[in-house]
Amino acid sequence: MGKNKVTLGVDIGGTKTAFGFVDQSGKIIIEKTIPTNAKKSASILFRELVKHTREMFSEISDRYDFTGVGIGAPNGNYFTGSVVNPPNMNWGSVNLVEAFNKYMEIPVFVTNDANATAIGEMLFGAARGMKNFIVLTLGTGLGSGIVVNGELVYGEDGFAGELGHTCVEPNGRQCGCGNRGCLEAYASVTGIRRTVYILLGEMTAESPLRQIAFDDLDAKVISELARRGDPIALKAFEITADFLGMSMANAVAFSRPEAIILFGGLTGAGELLFTPTKKAFEKYLLDLFRGKVNVLQSGLENSKAAILGSAALAWTELEKKSLL
Amino acid sequence: MGKNKVTLGVDIGGTKTAFGFVDQSGKIIIEKTIPTNAKKSASILFRELVKHTREMFSEISDRYDFTGVGIGAPNGNYFTGSVVNPPNMNWGSVNLVEAFNKYMEIPVFVTNDANATAIGEMLFGAARGMKNFIVLTLGTGLGSGIVVNGELVYGEDGFAGELGHTCVEPNGRQCGCGNRGCLEAYASVTGIRRTVYILLGEMTAESPLRQIAFDDLDAKVISELARRGDPIALKAFEITADFLGMSMANAVAFSRPEAIILFGGLTGAGELLFTPTKKAFEKYLLDLFRGKVNVLQSGLENSKAAILGSAALAWTELEKKSLL
Repeated sequence: MGKNKVTLGVDIGGTKTAFGFVDQSGKIIIEKTIPTNAKKSASILFRELVKHTREMFSEISDRYDFTGVGIGAPNGNYFTGSVVNPPNMNWGSVNLVEAFNKYMEIPVFVTNDANATAIGEMLFGAARGMKNFIVLTLGTGLGSGIVVNGELVYGEDGFAGELGHTCVEPNGRQCGCGNRGCLEAYASVTGIRRTVYILLGEMTAESPLRQIAFDDLDAKVISELARRGDPIALKAFEITADFLGMSMANAVAFSRPEAIILFGGLTGAGELLFTPTKKAFEKYLLDLFRGKVNVLQSGLENSKAAILGSAALAWTELEKKSLL
Repeated sequence: MGKNKVTLGVDIGGTKTAFGFVDQSGKIIIEKTIPTNAKKSASILFRELVKHTREMFSEISDRYDFTGVGIGAPNGNYFTGSVVNPPNMNWGSVNLVEAFNKYMEIPVFVTNDANATAIGEMLFGAARGMKNFIVLTLGTGLGSGIVVNGELVYGEDGFAGELGHTCVEPNGRQCGCGNRGCLEAYASVTGIRRTVYILLGEMTAESPLRQIAFDDLDAKVISELARRGDPIALKAFEITADFLGMSMANAVAFSRPEAIILFGGLTGAGELLFTPTKKAFEKYLLDLFRGKVNVLQSGLENSKAAILGSAALAWTELEKKSLL
């Protein structure tokens, strides 16, 4: 009997790099996490990464063939295989394909983290069988991966799908990108924290939120308080949902997807987020589209999504290039 | 020597229907315009249309083979070949492929007017050789055609590409679609007229615009006055350009096109529109995209674009289906 095939999914984050071998059904066979050591050079990470990869694969090599590697990284570019000045990392410009191939010859594919998540949803998650969908990752920032006609939208240079930096409020809040009024400044974990602080200034309601410093506030606390009826926390969800729903409706006017899938930290709030977001979404939708576009929670387990997404990228590319 | 091939491009408008035979180089061989008679049934128009088509073709049939028909119509749907309740027409739901084939058996392809223009730009106009671009048609309303990876974006149901109905101002101006704050209510011929009237109320400056009733005002008058330094007309262009530039930047964040092509009545204003629009566009763009996306004027002659676009649809579909 022939061996089964596996790909390695690698998720490079600012502090940790997670990686694991994944089979074609989306099962993680074996996984590991190491520090990214982002302040040191990329080649130190890749030396460690390949060392651990060899060790892990030796444990399963009797049953599996190792066919390729997918890497998701901040600013990762599908066309060039590089990252350029990833945020919070001292890497400058690094070609991740070459960095991996320096230690091990194998097909390596690169994209950014949100795109990897979208491919993961398409192969293993909530978007299985869909040809047109959009994934929004609501974490510290807001990332997006857009699929049209079954293909991820990369645009001219691999950097398409930056819905977090569409302007939703001209002259609005400052964004880390240098512009103002970006969606990410409203609809993300950071965005809802900023909303809470603005509301603490604007509203007079008593709230335990008044005892928490900005830097100590997280989305979980806001959710818990909203569940207990805190007026400021509830209002913060309403404002977040309105911006998010409006942007989702605008995205539908662009590509008319079958579904929009929400992923990431802020979705932990569950119906506190989904109910008002769906309501705002339907309100802003063009009549023609109302009631026709599903809003779904991610079908990937949060802690495994990054590895699965990167592995899914490798599966998809190997298939496209007939390397399976 | 074999005959050359032609397709028939048909543009159905609310009052007139224009059609013409077009060769593969984008040359209109012979063309004609008849009344749409939108208050009567569609089959009356199609009987006339096919009668004229036969007469026109008989004049060129010694030199040309007639291979297919492309039809651009308001709300025209690529997937179904139908229009459903086209605005200002008493048609209800009509399948245009069947309506044409009732009188003449030949391959017929349907899309909406803005999508036809985008395909026209790709084959014969400013987007020749491009794989990723967006066309915005700035007329009475704002239509859009989006091309990603060389394919028009139709989405799940053929109605993708409605950028005129993205919300640019929550709780903003009423739009004909029933929503508020749609781009079309600001960046279109109608939009700039509305802006002028709001400015006449807000500003105190003297202006010949104060002598023109809303219903009599057109984009040409606003352009002429802006050229002569009228402060209200100039301000109206500035406001229009800001909304347009912002939406164009948001579209780039979505699909990172090589170019955005502006078409239609409002572009007759030339640099009065393009200069402030490009400035706003660059301001709102994510840093990553600045200076990289061209803003172009249509490469199609305005009066011929509708026929060329519809004919281009036929050429593209016949090619795809190996019917050439």
